[in-house]
Amino acid sequence: MDALEFREIFQDRTETAGFEGMRGVMEIIEDVRRDKDAALRSYTEKFDGRAPGTFRVPPEKLKASYDALPEDRRRALEKIRGRIEDYQRMIRYEDRDDGEFKYVYHPLEKVGVYVPGGTALYPSSVLMTVVPAMVAGVDEIHVVTPTFEDSNITFAALHICGVENVYTVGGAQAVAALAFGTESIPKVDKIVGPGNYYVALAKRLLFGEVGIDMIAGPSEILIYVDEDVNVEAVVYDIFAQSEHDKNARTFLLSEDQEIIDRIEDRMRDLIDRQPRAEIIKQSIDNNHYAVVDSRQSLLALVNHIAPEHVSVQHRDADMIIRNIKYAGAVFEGYYSPEAIGDYAAGPSHVLPTDRTGRFSHGLNVNDFLTSHAVISLTEDTFGDIAESAMTVAEQEQLDAHYQSLKIRTE
Amino acid sequence: MDALEFREIFQDRTETAGFEGMRGVMEIIEDVRRDKDAALRSYTEKFDGRAPGTFRVPPEKLKASYDALPEDRRRALEKIRGRIEDYQRMIRYEDRDDGEFKYVYHPLEKVGVYVPGGTALYPSSVLMTVVPAMVAGVDEIHVVTPTFEDSNITFAALHICGVENVYTVGGAQAVAALAFGTESIPKVDKIVGPGNYYVALAKRLLFGEVGIDMIAGPSEILIYVDEDVNVEAVVYDIFAQSEHDKNARTFLLSEDQEIIDRIEDRMRDLIDRQPRAEIIKQSIDNNHYAVVDSRQSLLALVNHIAPEHVSVQHRDADMIIRNIKYAGAVFEGYYSPEAIGDYAAGPSHVLPTDRTGRFSHGLNVNDFLTSHAVISLTEDTFGDIAESAMTVAEQEQLDAHYQSLKIRTE
Repeated sequence: MDALEFREIFQDRTETAGFEGMRGVMEIIEDVRRDKDAALRSYTEKFDGRAPGTFRVPPEKLKASYDALPEDRRRALEKIRGRIEDYQRMIRYEDRDDGEFKYVYHPLEKVGVYVPGGTALYPSSVLMTVVPAMVAGVDEIHVVTPTFEDSNITFAALHICGVENVYTVGGAQAVAALAFGTESIPKVDKIVGPGNYYVALAKRLLFGEVGIDMIAGPSEILIYVDEDVNVEAVVYDIFAQSEHDKNARTFLLSEDQEIIDRIEDRMRDLIDRQPRAEIIKQSIDNNHYAVVDSRQSLLALVNHIAPEHVSVQHRDADMIIRNIKYAGAVFEGYYSPEAIGDYAAGPSHVLPTDRTGRFSHGLNVNDFLTSHAVISLTEDTFGDIAESAMTVAEQEQLDAHYQSLKIRTE
Repeated sequence: MDALEFREIFQDRTETAGFEGMRGVMEIIEDVRRDKDAALRSYTEKFDGRAPGTFRVPPEKLKASYDALPEDRRRALEKIRGRIEDYQRMIRYEDRDDGEFKYVYHPLEKVGVYVPGGTALYPSSVLMTVVPAMVAGVDEIHVVTPTFEDSNITFAALHICGVENVYTVGGAQAVAALAFGTESIPKVDKIVGPGNYYVALAKRLLFGEVGIDMIAGPSEILIYVDEDVNVEAVVYDIFAQSEHDKNARTFLLSEDQEIIDRIEDRMRDLIDRQPRAEIIKQSIDNNHYAVVDSRQSLLALVNHIAPEHVSVQHRDADMIIRNIKYAGAVFEGYYSPEAIGDYAAGPSHVLPTDRTGRFSHGLNVNDFLTSHAVISLTEDTFGDIAESAMTVAEQEQLDAHYQSLKIRTE
């Protein structure tokens, strides 16, 4: 397989700009902006089939969900919270100061986090979105999440993160509520977190009105293996990717056709025993297994696709990984399967998909900071550059700019 | 004036979500996506009243424009380019590596820069958008700019930045061309730079399809002065803000009513001598002059508004500035007037406006990088966290995730 063939594959997946869906979502946003809670109620009734009294979850309920969680699950979530905290602290930006120029970072004041729900519950997603915001030092974290028959695990995870502001509302309407504020949900400065198609469209439409992290689509992984790889481990890595949802997909690459055949054979042996075999079967139809003929062409492919996850289980992993420019996250070696990143390694599992890793990055503590320059010139530095600035001001015919500089040279 | 009154002022300015204009811009984008250069040609004819043969400016023309520029203007632009380079290098992010976790940055491959034109030419805007991309190490920089009767200054500035790919096309159609690619303009990974209302709408609509820097509106400044300030210098600072365009505005604040009165008086004396008096007169109608009663209320206002520019010409500037959390850029003292930032200080003058500084930052070198985590766990670290991860995987009923971890603990 060469770069061109791969490009074709990606071409197929490229979404349309999504403007059809957007027009519908615009109406939802306009309604929520105008009618606030009343619109939220009516859309929740329409889309979720329930008529909520209030949206806010009482903090006692979050605590009660935590208390009801078995001890080992609590401990697991708490341990993971600690890991994420440590990692996010490590990569947090620091202020710069060289006297005349400072560059300073401050946490955002109010952040909205969308936690998906509806069809499944992922306490890990709570930790992977909320903990980076906590580490940044965000003043207020407001979480919206659609209800589920039993949201207790989500609630318990929120309690572990110390979140007190939780609202059971989902979809584009929840995003609009966070962007403009309603009687029960405050306007926030930035909205983050993964969601369905309509949530993604609402986030696109509200970019600039509020801060938005990124627009993520179905999950994907590129796995590169050598012939000595543990076949069964790779099979489960592929199944793990596939069980997320039927649109997930895997690219399995190697220099060696035989190892690919062995992995495919073993997949066939094991697939029917998987609890989520139905989803896995649909999803593996999206997969691609291919021999790549050179290291160079492997790297060209990876950097072109910028896969959400890249797992390199190959004796030359270190050298290969040094040359990866674009990816959501890179996993090196046998003891860094993608599944450990989904839960516990430290970096958030909220990552760019569908080639957007070429310009965006996984959610992290720094997405919850904003920054600005402080300019404090000395008279000498000002004197050194004022003339050049005045020359350009003249050229741009901005005379008051010129005078504002000139007066200070006198 | 207290925080509440200020909030009212800002409420007035808050734009609607802009969906009316968006619907028209969607059509432009869809047309360009489908018909490429043909659509670009037809929109350029419709909106700019000219029928372009080709869009690409021959590189010889860029060079010729540079050669034609008077020596002092060339030198001024080159000196400024050097200043911007130095500053952007200083704040560039660096890779982190603690062994098991790396966090790495790479320059984007292809970037599109929108350089406004049409009614005026700003070589400074070329430098302030293109130089940060150069310093990041972007492979290809593609610049779009509407034509002007004489674009030579822009062309010369582009030549100084070493840009070779310049296309004379503007508006939403130019943004769409960069997002999807046409026969003559390549698809890029990210689009940056200020533009008019339609450019801003196109950037909002294409967020996620490509990277987008920010959505900026009319310019604004908050100036805080003490009673010893140089009155005439402040008058020119205000005029400099006002001469940009009729929607620009200034907030002039002090503890002292008398100094505000003196500044206003002097503005009246000088206004009719200003070459751009007509624009200034319209724009100063947007201004607000007010006494703030406490340091605390000043800071509450600044952090609420997050003004594009904050100029503190006050004996306690240092202490005040330490407490500013949100702003586009902060200018400290007499020798750092905002005009020096517009041209030559180093940070880009492309800054967030209209309260968006609460979640976004001025354009800089780091906006032209993307980043990802590399996870390389040792067997020990994996062993330490695998159990917690497996517990959560079970809880989420993702059995293949569980197996992918389990097999590696055996």
